[in-house]
Order: sequence, then C-alpha cells, then structure tokens
Amino acid sequence: MKYSYILNFIFDFIFLTFFALILALYSWGGFYPSNRQAGSVHIKKVEGSFQLYRNGAPFYIKGASGNSHFEELANNGANTIRVYDTLNLQSVLDEADRHGLAVIVDIPLPKYDEQFPEYNDDAKNEELKLQVKYLVQKFRDHPALLFWNLGNEVRYPVKLFPNKFIKTYNDLIEIIHLEDPNHLVSTTVQRRTDILAIARHSPKLDLLGYNIFGTINKVPSHIESMNFILSGSFPYYISEWGIDGYWETAYTKWGASIEPTSTKKNEQLRTRYYDIQNAGDNCQGSLVFHWGQKHECSKTWFSLFGENGEKSEMVYTLNNVWTGQNKKNQDIGLDYMLLDGRGAPSSIVLPSDTFTKAELKLKKLINDSLKISWELYPDYCRLEGISEEIKQPKKITDAIASESGLTVTFETPMEEGPYRLYAYLENQDGFVASCNTPFYVIGKTNE
Amino acid sequence: MKYSYILNFIFDFIFLTFFALILALYSWGGFYPSNRQAGSVHIKKVEGSFQLYRNGAPFYIKGASGNSHFEELANNGANTIRVYDTLNLQSVLDEADRHGLAVIVDIPLPKYDEQFPEYNDDAKNEELKLQVKYLVQKFRDHPALLFWNLGNEVRYPVKLFPNKFIKTYNDLIEIIHLEDPNHLVSTTVQRRTDILAIARHSPKLDLLGYNIFGTINKVPSHIESMNFILSGSFPYYISEWGIDGYWETAYTKWGASIEPTSTKKNEQLRTRYYDIQNAGDNCQGSLVFHWGQKHECSKTWFSLFGENGEKSEMVYTLNNVWTGQNKKNQDIGLDYMLLDGRGAPSSIVLPSDTFTKAELKLKKLINDSLKISWELYPDYCRLEGISEEIKQPKKITDAIASESGLTVTFETPMEEGPYRLYAYLENQDGFVASCNTPFYVIGKTNE
Repeated sequence: MKYSYILNFIFDFIFLTFFALILALYSWGGFYPSNRQAGSVHIKKVEGSFQLYRNGAPFYIKGASGNSHFEELANNGANTIRVYDTLNLQSVLDEADRHGLAVIVDIPLPKYDEQFPEYNDDAKNEELKLQVKYLVQKFRDHPALLFWNLGNEVRYPVKLFPNKFIKTYNDLIEIIHLEDPNHLVSTTVQRRTDILAIARHSPKLDLLGYNIFGTINKVPSHIESMNFILSGSFPYYISEWGIDGYWETAYTKWGASIEPTSTKKNEQLRTRYYDIQNAGDNCQGSLVFHWGQKHECSKTWFSLFGENGEKSEMVYTLNNVWTGQNKKNQDIGLDYMLLDGRGAPSSIVLPSDTFTKAELKLKKLINDSLKISWELYPDYCRLEGISEEIKQPKKITDAIASESGLTVTFETPMEEGPYRLYAYLENQDGFVASCNTPFYVIGKTNE
Repeated sequence: MKYSYILNFIFDFIFLTFFALILALYSWGGFYPSNRQAGSVHIKKVEGSFQLYRNGAPFYIKGASGNSHFEELANNGANTIRVYDTLNLQSVLDEADRHGLAVIVDIPLPKYDEQFPEYNDDAKNEELKLQVKYLVQKFRDHPALLFWNLGNEVRYPVKLFPNKFIKTYNDLIEIIHLEDPNHLVSTTVQRRTDILAIARHSPKLDLLGYNIFGTINKVPSHIESMNFILSGSFPYYISEWGIDGYWETAYTKWGASIEPTSTKKNEQLRTRYYDIQNAGDNCQGSLVFHWGQKHECSKTWFSLFGENGEKSEMVYTLNNVWTGQNKKNQDIGLDYMLLDGRGAPSSIVLPSDTFTKAELKLKKLINDSLKISWELYPDYCRLEGISEEIKQPKKITDAIASESGLTVTFETPMEEGPYRLYAYLENQDGFVASCNTPFYVIGKTNE
C-alpha cells in the first residue's frame, strides 16, 4: 500500500494531462452504468448523482471488511460486510443473512504485473473465466449478496490499447453480468491513475471501490478531478478506510512505527467518518478496516477485536457514527504510556534482563472499574519489513513482575532486539482501550 | 393531542415552581434506573449521560410507530418498530425478528381521568395486573422485544400523594420488572408536567418516551428545565415525532386544515431529525409517526404509505436521515396546487356541479417519467372535529373529467359541503409526492 508520494504525483500529473488529451480524440461514452438499473441491487442516476438501491430502497453502505463477529457488526448499526475471498462462502453468506447483513464478495484475481505477465497464458485465462462463472452461478440467488468485487487492488494496467489482462477482465465482467443480472460488479482501487484506465477500458463496471488510508479527507478533491477528466460522474464507495497506517506515522530510530493510542484512533475514526459522509453525492458508503483481529505491524494496529473476541473501544465509536448518535465522547480516556519515564518518540533503549517500570496516564481520574493488563512481545514492525510477510511474534510469558493500578514492573528480555509493551484497559461494558510502546534491548555488556 | 398552549403555560409555571419547592422537602433519590443495568436490554449511566444497550452493544433507536411494512422499514435503515397494542403480538414479533427489527410493545392502559376514575375499582386493578403479568410471561423471551411501554399518554395524575392509579401503575412496573429482568419499562408522555409527577411517584420506570409534534426543536430546552428541577438527568427517547399536525397549520375559513405538500413535509422531517440527533446525551433515539396508512384529517397527512402500499417520498427522506447519507435533496419537487387558479389559503369556494380546473406547479422542469393521478373526497378535517372519531370519507368516483400533464378538469359534486382534491406524482422508483387542496361547494342557486 505504501508508495512514493513524489513519484506518484509526477506520474499522476503527466498521466492526467496527456490522457485527458488522448481521451478527447475518442468518441467517449462515459463511465455510466445505465445498463444496470434493474435487479434487486442496482444503481440509479437521479439529477446527476448516483444512488445504490437494494430491495427497492436506497442503500447506504455502512460496514467493515473482515470475516468474523457478524452479530456484533449488525448489533452495532452496520449493514454490510466485505469478505476478501470466497472460502466457506456459503456459510459466510448464511451467517450474514441471519444477522441482516449484506455481503460484498471479493473475487480474488492475480495481480497484474508487466514483469510477470500472469494473464498472457490463454488457457489460464479461460480457466479463470470458468471458475468465476461457476462461483457466480452457485451464489447469485443468495439473499445476503450485495455485489461482486472483481479483484482487490489488481493494478489495472495504464495502457492506451487493451492488452490480454484487460480483455480477460472485461470478459469476466460480462460473464458476471450475464449470469447474475441482480447484482453489480465493482473493483477496488488504490491508485487514482487506475480509475482513468478502468474508465477507458472497462466502462461496464458498475461502481468503483476506493481503498484509502490516511487521506480520507482528500477524497472529495480526488473525485472532483476525476469527474472533470471523465466529463461525467460515477458511483463509488470507500472500500477500505480506517486509522493512519503504520507507514504513515512517526518511527523510532530503529524503524519501529509508533502506534496511536485507541483514544487517538477514536478521534481519527470520528473525523474521517464525517469526511466520508460529506464525500459527495456519488459516494455509496464505506467499509472500515479491519473487523476482526489481524496482526499488521502490531497486534492492535488495525484490529477492532482482540484474539479472544475482546471489543476495542473503537467498536463503540463506530457504533456511534454508524447509528448517527450525536453524543458526548465516551472514550475510556487513555492518554499515553511512559516507559522508564519516557515516551515512544524518544526511541527508548533499555538494558537486557533488567526490571523496568511502565506507567499509563489517563485523561480522567482513575476509574476503579477499569481492568488493566499488560503484555510483552518481540516486535517486527520496522519500516523495511512492510512489504515482506509479517511474522506473528510470540508473547513473552513471565515478563510482568508486578502490577499496581496504572503501573507495571517488567523484566526486559535477555536477547537483544526490538520489543513492544502492550497495555489494555477494559471497562465494565467490555470495551478495551489500548496502547503500546516499542523499545530496543541491548545487552548489559554493550552499555 | 391538542390543548390550550396558554393555559398549559400558566399551569406549567405554577406547577414547576411549587412542585420544585415541595420536592426540596423530601429526601429525593432522583430518577435513576440504577436497578436495571444488566439484562439483554439495559441502560447504563456513563459520565453523567445514559446509554441504552441491546445484546452488548449501544443501541440508538431509529424507527417508526405502526404495524405494517416491516420489511420496508428495515430496508430503509431503521432498527425499531413501536406497536400501540398487543393484537397478534406473536406474529408481529416474529415478523419484526425476520427483518432484524426491535419492537417496543405498548401495553394499553385506560387513561386516567379524575371525573371518571377508572382505577378506583380494586377488582378491576387486580384483573389488569394479572393480564399484564400473563402478557409479559408469554413474550418476555422473544428476541425481537426491546422494551415494554406501559401506557401511551396515560395522563399521569399530578398529585402530591399517590392515589389508586399511581399505586396500580407502580405495581404494574414491579410485575414487569419481576417477570422480565431482560427488558425495560417505559411510558410515553406528551405533557411536561406528567414527567415531574412520574419522577415523583414512579421512579422505578427505566425511561420515558416523549410524544412530540411540531415542537421538536424545543426538546433540548424542555429537557434542560426538567434536569434542573429533578436535580439529575434521566434517559428518554422521542416516541412520536413527525411533521406539523393538522391542529398546528393554517385553516380555511370553514376550518379545514391546509396540508403541507410532501416537499414541505420532507423539509420538516430533515430539520427535525437533525434536532433530535442533537437533543442531548440522554436521548436514546426516536420513532417517526406513522409507518403505514392512517386517516387523520386527510388520507395523506401522517401516512408514509398509501392504501395499496405506495411509498410516499418521505420514505426516501427517512432512509437518508436514518442511514446518515449526506446527499443532495432528491425530492420529486412538487411545489403547489392551484385550484381554479387559486391556492388553498384563499379559502376556495366553488359552485356545485361545475367543471373546474386544477393545476400542479413543480420546482423543476416537468419530468416525463412522473405518473400523475387525482382523487376527490368529501372532507371532514375541520377544527371542531378533531377530538371526535374521524370519519373515513368515501372517494367520489367519476369526478375526474380529463387529465393532461400537470392539469386536471373535474366536476364539483352536487351536494354542498367541504371537499378535498388530492394529487399524486409517482416517480420511476415508486416514490410518491402528494398534495391536496380543501374547497367548499355551495349550490348554484345560492350564488
């Protein structure tokens, strides 16, 4: 998901300018899904803006990506889940239906890459088409299905003329439309240039999903420039949004991302959901990332739930924005953690095998009903490791020596290297605030 | 629902002043439902504000009162239906559950009235308690049940010491709490003085429902004064809200209420829903009146659906506010009707048995896809008739002589009296804009 912003800007500028000129040479029909205005799920254009419909009523997507905790998702006011693959799809759809959730089903596609041209093998392409056809035939009548998402960040090629990937991709759209007139086809993109290329070569797509982190507030201006170039407008939804990614925050000297506290995450969620609601008439809603537990950089970075189903306090915040409750901030009120008297930005280095104190600061007076717990893990969240498969670190047991109120004493490990100390504060309703501090251990002899 | 505002104000003033003084003489425990913090539905007080919970998640009531169109209610983003009686309750709860709706069940009680003291007969009171007990036992385990509403606008007596009504009422609360620890007990009130009396004598109630028309924007100030007098705060929800009532609008000279167009109703719905969202931390949501078809003054005044299930365009507006879509106004754009070249406020009098022209004005250019239709009815919506049972007028067939685009020619009836001409504009999605004009027919010989 990380890419160079400067390179991207230059590329965008050149691309947008020249592509716009080239587009003008063609008779341009626009990116208008007029062929999909019927069916149990469809999109209508009224007075220049699009509206998604489901079962006869306007449908505004409020949901998350993930594949667990469906009941909690529905109970907290959401209406949609997006699943990234088709594993156990029957039971996923059944479970979603039991809780009244609509499902966006990703059809995973190999990513396009000019260096490794996956799509140059015609036999493979035909096989792919058959697989997609059978998948759609099997599930097209399920009441929980909202639409098909054909490929996530598939890196749609920016070409003037269609290549084999594009031809295969368009065949797939046609197959889905033919087999399932009741549901739409979208694709999810992360680069703006993809949108231009898709509009040029795959105008039969019904809507676009935008995967956006950190730059949610720029969506309206992105859309505006797109509309200008496309001489029209098109429907979209925010297919991934959430808090700042670990590639967007401050780092320690050894490259460990400094994670915002859950209090800070709540602020970001509230502000960004408001931005999405005001993103424009063509935005059909949004999906927060990630409804479940997922180790990305840390245990808690994007996880809205813990390993044992514990609800983070962000679930409470999402409930509030999804249901439109305009109430006071009900955050648990965690402010920050001090480790050996210092904060994470000071790049804390500690001697090995030494008792060390950590302390939590709250924004409110201490609440006796808070249950506080601590965990120590080795840490592999470093700048250079992002594109690699991220290892699942194992918890260091017996590290915590003593706990008392907001403070803990723990023993630093023997082994040199990066670690992360996690703290959790659970309130009476079972919502959990959390924060963590990365630190680096060096052997005592090195000091 | 109508009452004299001036008398009410004087009464309120005297009552609030003296009651506050008297209250100060008592050791006052406040109106705090601390005894109901567990159960599948419960209320918690966090940092001075209340939060309704259902199945472990904060629950914000978004719904309507009515007993039909449950599927449409759920499809349009609501989560709750309120039913005013217990007729066919099993199938009502089952149907609601199928669509993921929570149900607020009214337990109808005879209204209190000092002149006709319904509650002075002890045998009757015991019978009532038994009935309520059996009802609660029968349905307390239904998953769709949200809470019990013990009496709608029951006219709670304003007394310093409890009378037989109050004792019976408190026994009923206790019976429900005892039989059903998983659901709350509310009551719905329309007079502010009721709230004081209820707080004084029935502090075991878990929350209050406010039935409010026309004065939604005054809710926060009402609540503020209540909080001040009660030396604390209490949870409530808006149990009825909607557009201005027929007792709050302009009238013709013969007393027929002039109904706002659906365009105007949409404006009111949007503004008031926003007011409710900002009503305060203790507001647990709201129910719009009326999800269905109901003849009150006119066929269309409060009806969100037509007799044959046609959706009014207000359903679209409610979908938008419930789902939090911040989009452009998608109203059909009906502006007003002219009858014989005049508007309703000019108190149109027409000769009997005469061809007359009516015309619709739109805010937009005429849209070819609009299906326009007209109906003529005798009209019994007059100021003096409000408290009586309102008659269901019968449609006058064969009145429409010819229709063309936005105009119609119809024949005024032979019989003298008040009538109302209705117009409907249905768009391609099946949403219907409507308006009507009252007029009075006098015999030709009288002219």
